[in-house]
Amino acid sequence: MKKVKRSSRLVEMTQYLLQRPHVLIPLTTFAERYNSAKSSISEDLTIIKEVFQDEGLGELQTLAGAAGGVKYIPKSPKAASLDMMGRICAQLQEPERILPGGYLYMSDLLGQPSIVDEIGKMFASAFAGVELDCVMTVETKGIPIAYATAGYLNLPVVIVRRDNKVTEGSAVSINYVSGSTKRIQTMSLARRALKEESNVLIIDDFMKAGGTIAGMVDLLREFKATVKGVGVFVESDEDVTDHLVEEYVSLAVLTGVDTRNRHIIVRPGNYFEGVEKEQ
Amino acid sequence: MKKVKRSSRLVEMTQYLLQRPHVLIPLTTFAERYNSAKSSISEDLTIIKEVFQDEGLGELQTLAGAAGGVKYIPKSPKAASLDMMGRICAQLQEPERILPGGYLYMSDLLGQPSIVDEIGKMFASAFAGVELDCVMTVETKGIPIAYATAGYLNLPVVIVRRDNKVTEGSAVSINYVSGSTKRIQTMSLARRALKEESNVLIIDDFMKAGGTIAGMVDLLREFKATVKGVGVFVESDEDVTDHLVEEYVSLAVLTGVDTRNRHIIVRPGNYFEGVEKEQ
Repeated sequence: MKKVKRSSRLVEMTQYLLQRPHVLIPLTTFAERYNSAKSSISEDLTIIKEVFQDEGLGELQTLAGAAGGVKYIPKSPKAASLDMMGRICAQLQEPERILPGGYLYMSDLLGQPSIVDEIGKMFASAFAGVELDCVMTVETKGIPIAYATAGYLNLPVVIVRRDNKVTEGSAVSINYVSGSTKRIQTMSLARRALKEESNVLIIDDFMKAGGTIAGMVDLLREFKATVKGVGVFVESDEDVTDHLVEEYVSLAVLTGVDTRNRHIIVRPGNYFEGVEKEQ
Repeated sequence: MKKVKRSSRLVEMTQYLLQRPHVLIPLTTFAERYNSAKSSISEDLTIIKEVFQDEGLGELQTLAGAAGGVKYIPKSPKAASLDMMGRICAQLQEPERILPGGYLYMSDLLGQPSIVDEIGKMFASAFAGVELDCVMTVETKGIPIAYATAGYLNLPVVIVRRDNKVTEGSAVSINYVSGSTKRIQTMSLARRALKEESNVLIIDDFMKAGGTIAGMVDLLREFKATVKGVGVFVESDEDVTDHLVEEYVSLAVLTGVDTRNRHIIVRPGNYFEGVEKEQ
């Protein structure tokens, strides 16, 4: 095999690393792939590391020794994320988004893969240091965010269904009370969808009182799983006196919906507490 | 601003292009970004183009002239996709996947972002040359594939709901008959979710007789939209005498489910007709 030039190697390694977040890649993999000395590969990685850092793409962690290698940890700098979230909040405040029941129309924003990708990267940054086995969400609107997050964390996704149509073999169903509407609802998960004793990150698009997420926590108990984190895109503190979920990361907070005057206030969530904007 | 070295520029441009598929980027954008001459940028792009081609990442199209620039078109070579799909088919043939009604348990595979990403890239390759405004799917299992496809095509996603709970303002609902179960079902889409006269690509995870997709086609008629393509991950020709959808791209075909002997046959779909495996 012919030797690969540094310039081509840099392009190749960049895409290779970007496609494999949170995967430890031994230097020998690259050395063999490009028929190059490990010392050259190390120099390449130094260049890539610097650019990734400067561009806010994340960290390249290098581990020395026989079991060593390099690992790409996607991380968005919080100040840059806050700028991005500020722009999203401004869009969420458009009065025509107000829906009956104090909900917000967000399907247009969550229908844009590039925005979903940014949101996923923020959650992946927030939970990068947590030992996890999978990301869980409940259908429907949280699904794209859960996948974007899981992609950056290199984890599988488990989707809880909102009915108990058991089409996937034996399933566990639970009833839960929606915190805001006080109605009894059902959610279920196939037995084979989740290994027992898994470490789980729960992701959802919207949280009011937290009934749905509390339901997922109950469901996970049936699988002897541990909830290692909860991330919600938008939380609403509108008419909420009692949160059913105590610890969570939110990217935005809906603080006021004035249906009559068609006025909404959305500000960045608790993830950004104490963070200053870039400019 | 200081000049950026070629080595750093290559890393930077690679990630910049990968993140912006199907977007025309003027060379001046790069020239200003790195404070470099356009001729140097052109040389960089030649290097990146070659690596992208060799690695099966897709094409870098360069357009000359004042309105020119460079555009990254993600495309998986069919032979490599066929290898990948062969491995997926082998997994789909595992007997424990058989579900009542001739369905297949696929949630574990579709729960892996890297597999979903590959599937999305195959659909994006298949429909790269089609003029499209959005990708549409119906909840639930097709959603991740639709997002992966849309991400590679730089398009928004529209999700059709399987009920008529109108929580998103005025909506259009239609009844359709599931081709395989012959039951009447409902699907609906908010008026504001889709502009009239859009060009739409329909993506779904599974198709038997095609009732669900025919339903989406009917629904799209209400929006004066044009269906420019249909992509299904797995089609089943089990017990199907009459397909309700005639033109579609399938990545895999389920040709036989022998529930009694717990035997399944899954082979690559019509997308791969006439393609030879790599080795």
